[in-house]
Amino acid sequence: MTFTFDRVASSGAARAGVFTTPHGRVDTPAFMAVGTVATVKALDPIELEAIGCQVILANTYHLHLRPGDEIVRSLGGVHRFMGWNGPMLTDSGGFQVFSLESLRTVSEDGVEFRSHIDGSRHRFTPESVIQIERNLGADVIMQFDHVIPGQSVEVEARDASERSIRWLVRCNAELERISQREPGTGNREQRLLRSTGPDSPFPVPVQTLFPIVQGGIHANLRREASRVIQAEGDWLGYGIGGLSVGESKPDMYAMLDVVNEELPHDRPRYLMGVGFPEDLVEGVRRGVDLFDCVAPTRMGRNGTAFTSDGRVNVRRSELRADARPLDETCECSTCKRFSRAYIRHLFVADEILGLRLVSLHNVHFLVALMRRARAAIIDGSFDAWSRDWLARYHSRPTPVP
Amino acid sequence: MTFTFDRVASSGAARAGVFTTPHGRVDTPAFMAVGTVATVKALDPIELEAIGCQVILANTYHLHLRPGDEIVRSLGGVHRFMGWNGPMLTDSGGFQVFSLESLRTVSEDGVEFRSHIDGSRHRFTPESVIQIERNLGADVIMQFDHVIPGQSVEVEARDASERSIRWLVRCNAELERISQREPGTGNREQRLLRSTGPDSPFPVPVQTLFPIVQGGIHANLRREASRVIQAEGDWLGYGIGGLSVGESKPDMYAMLDVVNEELPHDRPRYLMGVGFPEDLVEGVRRGVDLFDCVAPTRMGRNGTAFTSDGRVNVRRSELRADARPLDETCECSTCKRFSRAYIRHLFVADEILGLRLVSLHNVHFLVALMRRARAAIIDGSFDAWSRDWLARYHSRPTPVP
Repeated sequence: MTFTFDRVASSGAARAGVFTTPHGRVDTPAFMAVGTVATVKALDPIELEAIGCQVILANTYHLHLRPGDEIVRSLGGVHRFMGWNGPMLTDSGGFQVFSLESLRTVSEDGVEFRSHIDGSRHRFTPESVIQIERNLGADVIMQFDHVIPGQSVEVEARDASERSIRWLVRCNAELERISQREPGTGNREQRLLRSTGPDSPFPVPVQTLFPIVQGGIHANLRREASRVIQAEGDWLGYGIGGLSVGESKPDMYAMLDVVNEELPHDRPRYLMGVGFPEDLVEGVRRGVDLFDCVAPTRMGRNGTAFTSDGRVNVRRSELRADARPLDETCECSTCKRFSRAYIRHLFVADEILGLRLVSLHNVHFLVALMRRARAAIIDGSFDAWSRDWLARYHSRPTPVP
Repeated sequence: MTFTFDRVASSGAARAGVFTTPHGRVDTPAFMAVGTVATVKALDPIELEAIGCQVILANTYHLHLRPGDEIVRSLGGVHRFMGWNGPMLTDSGGFQVFSLESLRTVSEDGVEFRSHIDGSRHRFTPESVIQIERNLGADVIMQFDHVIPGQSVEVEARDASERSIRWLVRCNAELERISQREPGTGNREQRLLRSTGPDSPFPVPVQTLFPIVQGGIHANLRREASRVIQAEGDWLGYGIGGLSVGESKPDMYAMLDVVNEELPHDRPRYLMGVGFPEDLVEGVRRGVDLFDCVAPTRMGRNGTAFTSDGRVNVRRSELRADARPLDETCECSTCKRFSRAYIRHLFVADEILGLRLVSLHNVHFLVALMRRARAAIIDGSFDAWSRDWLARYHSRPTPVP
């Protein structure tokens, strides 16, 4: 197997594991840094590697529009393009075209939309999305799905969930069809491995398709989707989509409990688009292995730092002569070297290094948080540790003006 | 001696040397990266160290206005503030207040000006500038000088040059006066070294004052200023100011020839604000040891890369699928990892990593150029190497639209 998932310990629903991909291993639970247009905003891959980030996500929608997935393929695929040799995952664009709202029309065949860059018309179908994801060449590729607002009523949620499952079948068929065309004989995996050799003009990626469990905030739909999807194939991992899109936190956590009961325990689960510190800890408590979110880099660029005592707005005038690091318990290269006063100065003076330092700190914060959770699962202290951590985090929420 | 300058080889007027400061050595000739507000724009000190940059310049004018030099002092001085433990130099603000034009009034006592940030009124005198530079704590501090446009007629150039020399005397007296107040006994250097110990609440910096030779494009004024300044003290190095401010390149090079004849050969010479690749090579040929300029980072942020064949505009559409590095002969971490196509994509998508990668490449380009020049001086090939380099650089000037 090119992709494997080994559970090394568990604590209640929480699991510590090793997810192996053609580009290396991911120790789970793990936070995946978001590199929307093939760059984790403001950061260099070298910095991400140094803080122990093991996997990066890129976006099908964005890279298709710019620079174009054929360009990325001609340059050796998204790993080589962005200088990251570790595991990668591509989202399918389902969430992005959902976010376009008035610019898109959904039909059974696919979605028509206008580019947010220049208004040009485009069309995504399950088939075209798989072709794009194949050109990009990430290790894990997500199915094209129909995303709806978090508060959608059951009839709408059912419609979108059932359509997403029909699209999953089409995505899988397209991936099989493309594979048939690829050079050589033998089974698909053998052909793929052969075709990535140095003689191949364009490396053919070894990829696995993850389905996405939808169903809104309706437990019966989530349960049904989990079961039907499993009946459709032997997937090497599962996405959990349509959460953190406007529903309440208790609703989100309840859906995670339902899905945890239904999905096979020997496959990794990826909770899509969720990445605030408290959500990561709550997610791990409910059996989630992988997370991603733009929050750490977006908030980093806005000057908001995650700390173990809550958020800190680095522009606050009280920090003017504050010699302390952002977080006194943090081991990141920002906190080991720079004072709050210096970081505040950089933001006030509109200096790029400020965005870099807080973005790096925030991504490190989530990566290190998952590393800490994993160690606690392994040493048997996870339940107590996670309760203590959540209590401390919620007890001192620094207001962000 | 806390500051020393040892010449290890020469070739015509060009010299290879080692300039030692309390914060370490600088192999000369050297390019100093400009960290105007205590950050080399878009770059991290770790990156500068990795490319072999040995010395950083910061600006008195900017740091006085924001965050304030007293704040920097309270945080341990500019080295600790910005996380750079190598040699540093502060400009005196003379050039900055000159650049304000209509916002400033020059008198014999000093300069009144309005802040470019908020229009507030400020006053720089030779004495106040030394107090600020002492709070910042760089190793080399430049005198406060009167800068004029490069094309100024002789009577104006003489007035500014003679005033600059009177201000040099006042700067030096103020530095001596401050030193007298400092704790302990013994000579000034011994007192300073003692007071930087771990028991000192605020480290007292060990600094040396560099005079600045002015005189516009008038050889007789440059000669006269060089002689009078030497008669005023035993300076450990010399600035050459008022060049690259609107005069022609032949005029600038002629002034360097004059100053090279007049200044003592056993002290480093710093050509202020000059930093295009061809000017560095021409400067070294005329006995200059130190350079600084915002060009590499400013052009880096604009998407213009220095290469050994001239400048490349990374936004050009021809680069869309160009798998080559910015410069195929370059050893920097940008060129070792990323294609022109990727860098173009980052600029088109307005991604911060693009500014970082080209800024780093450009600073590396100048640092490596000076390293190469130094090696050529040492191995005796400098004259031929520098002629070849200039011919190649000028032969293929890629137009920058």
